[in-house]
Amino acid sequence: MAKQLKGACIIGQSGGPTSVINASAYGVIKTALECPDITRVYGAAHGIRGVLDDVLYDMGEEDEKELALLLNTPSSALGSCRYKLKDSSVDDSDYKRILEIFKKYDVRYFFYNGGNDSMDTCNKISKYMQQAGYECRIMGVPKTIDNDLYGTDHCPGFASAAKYIATTCMELYLDARVYDKGMVCVLECMGRHAGWLTAAAGVASHFGMGPDLIYLPERVFDVDRFLADVEAVYKKNGNCLVAVSEGTHDENGTLIVEAANANAAVDAFGHKQLGGLASFLADKVKEKLNVKVRPIEFSLMQRCAAHSASATDVNESFLAGKAAVENAVNGITDKMVGFERSYDENGKYVCSIKLIDLAEVANTEKKVPDSMINASANGVTEEFISYVLPLIEGEAKPVYQNGVPRFAKLKKVKAK
Amino acid sequence: MAKQLKGACIIGQSGGPTSVINASAYGVIKTALECPDITRVYGAAHGIRGVLDDVLYDMGEEDEKELALLLNTPSSALGSCRYKLKDSSVDDSDYKRILEIFKKYDVRYFFYNGGNDSMDTCNKISKYMQQAGYECRIMGVPKTIDNDLYGTDHCPGFASAAKYIATTCMELYLDARVYDKGMVCVLECMGRHAGWLTAAAGVASHFGMGPDLIYLPERVFDVDRFLADVEAVYKKNGNCLVAVSEGTHDENGTLIVEAANANAAVDAFGHKQLGGLASFLADKVKEKLNVKVRPIEFSLMQRCAAHSASATDVNESFLAGKAAVENAVNGITDKMVGFERSYDENGKYVCSIKLIDLAEVANTEKKVPDSMINASANGVTEEFISYVLPLIEGEAKPVYQNGVPRFAKLKKVKAK
Repeated sequence: MAKQLKGACIIGQSGGPTSVINASAYGVIKTALECPDITRVYGAAHGIRGVLDDVLYDMGEEDEKELALLLNTPSSALGSCRYKLKDSSVDDSDYKRILEIFKKYDVRYFFYNGGNDSMDTCNKISKYMQQAGYECRIMGVPKTIDNDLYGTDHCPGFASAAKYIATTCMELYLDARVYDKGMVCVLECMGRHAGWLTAAAGVASHFGMGPDLIYLPERVFDVDRFLADVEAVYKKNGNCLVAVSEGTHDENGTLIVEAANANAAVDAFGHKQLGGLASFLADKVKEKLNVKVRPIEFSLMQRCAAHSASATDVNESFLAGKAAVENAVNGITDKMVGFERSYDENGKYVCSIKLIDLAEVANTEKKVPDSMINASANGVTEEFISYVLPLIEGEAKPVYQNGVPRFAKLKKVKAK
Repeated sequence: MAKQLKGACIIGQSGGPTSVINASAYGVIKTALECPDITRVYGAAHGIRGVLDDVLYDMGEEDEKELALLLNTPSSALGSCRYKLKDSSVDDSDYKRILEIFKKYDVRYFFYNGGNDSMDTCNKISKYMQQAGYECRIMGVPKTIDNDLYGTDHCPGFASAAKYIATTCMELYLDARVYDKGMVCVLECMGRHAGWLTAAAGVASHFGMGPDLIYLPERVFDVDRFLADVEAVYKKNGNCLVAVSEGTHDENGTLIVEAANANAAVDAFGHKQLGGLASFLADKVKEKLNVKVRPIEFSLMQRCAAHSASATDVNESFLAGKAAVENAVNGITDKMVGFERSYDENGKYVCSIKLIDLAEVANTEKKVPDSMINASANGVTEEFISYVLPLIEGEAKPVYQNGVPRFAKLKKVKAK
């Protein structure tokens, strides 16, 4: 049995939010509040920035019912950040400060809810704390609509975004072919290097109401081939619906969107703020085929549409947070909570918790495998559909009041 | 008692679709199929074009359960059109053709499901049939997300779009302020001349999670004043969420979006295909304030997001279709079905059917009244909130299968 460790915990949220990142936070907060070993539960304002700036909220001061609303509240309730820690060998001032704050509040548990970059942050902090001889258990709680984290079958947040995209594609499929005169509609999905989200449009196609063509960043994108694909579909059907990942690129790895967005801003991780690909491609189609076109970006909606979240995703996200606390209290550290998939004797999908080394996860990206992309590089295979369907199963039921969702409003009482 | 009129009926759908236009069509089809006086129920492919082209579907051939799915299926299941009939005094060839088709199928009831232009079409056909001495009862069944039809408290389709916008604004409000560094997010809503839909963003603001600024086309839009408004909010809060109608215009009536979209296409009614306003304004903000910006268009999603439709709207839309048939069979003609609002002794909203002369409705637009727009012309008043809240009440419950909505798939058997 692991040595008992008593002390406070911090939960922080980082990176782009999702519809269910708060469900994971709630899993951490609720479990930690009920845990005898955890003396206080602090929420860091804007992830690691809140630790550095000493802005922590006392989660024990929150109303229980309000906290429960986090299950269906989109975005990061505690605030997020895109702050990158330097290597401690280069500059350890941030780490010294984090240690200072951990000591100040007697923090012995640190839970960080985020994607690749956040797992890297966890890993760096953990190493520093070990070197400094400060006992602290550090666990990563995954989230990312991009579904690109290594070592886990899937990531909390992906399924809800996938469900939004599949549902919206079906609705747009019906809407975009309503007139006697057809059109080409280009839908742009998020996903810089991994095409999981864009692939989710294939669920709509699978049920006969989805994109005719789907382009993932796992394949080289050729504008001329794209135009030929669109022309062939349009000539045959009089309509064409296309889903395309913002991260599609040419054979040199240059993003197609860069032609449209030459001066896009760059964030702290060196990621470009993308967008405008749908418009760029729609213009190309208009130029070549002279048909009606409509570019549509799913923009932030795909990551915050909590009203259409997957019940499976909400449930699993909560469990990921809960498992992080339970495992840490049991002596585990330096792990990210992940999911393992199996099927029971009736072929029903079962999701179990697994633990993955932070060092393994950090900064590794999991892409859509070849077997899930069709031979023409413009669609997905049945293998992808079988993979994704259990994840989008079930409809989350947010609390509604006056016809709109009742999202959590935290008091955010500052820790003393 | 009105003279009994036996014969077939045609239901057609016209103009931009909504999340619930099929609920109205289902109200017509189901009621007509059950009505002894109506011998056959035909659906016109692509509205009046289906009549002109003799493409009618026999609704009696459809599976009952599949028809019932129309209640929650977005877009126009029969297909829509934007075909404008000429005045019969100028060119009566279309009218002659319509009469020919009506005679061929013994059509004595014509139900047309659409907006302003469709009511005009109804009115013109009715006058021609009267002149030609052909007995036929013609009823308009309203639909428009724009909510701009004259004579009715509100229009089927508006409330579901309003609910989508209010809900999505709340989700975006939470998402767009998640980082420690703020941004200005500009949301573009549909609405050429009437700002009802954009005003619906005010519901989110009313509940503390919505746009800081809302601009309707009922007020002159001044780019400099807009920038000053945004700057003031951003300086105060470090974030700014703006909702703006695609139809905002300057003091000369020139659309703001025209600066961005000089060569936008024009449809058969002379309406310009708009879009791009959010990007244009976001660029202006970036230029002036040098802050992070994000333009978002609700695009077609706002009119087809059946998965988040208002249960009140679905119910009322069905009733509008049902009432059209019942009244026609009882001898009524040349009317549009409208809604009247009242409140019962407990202050609960009650919606009753009223009938409005087609001639009165056709081509008249109902705008947001002054009393619903704030004095600064950048928000809505409590009067608007009280008006819209009962309409968005209740969540429609589409049938889900495999994690996505199961929308109606009609057989569309051609009439003989």
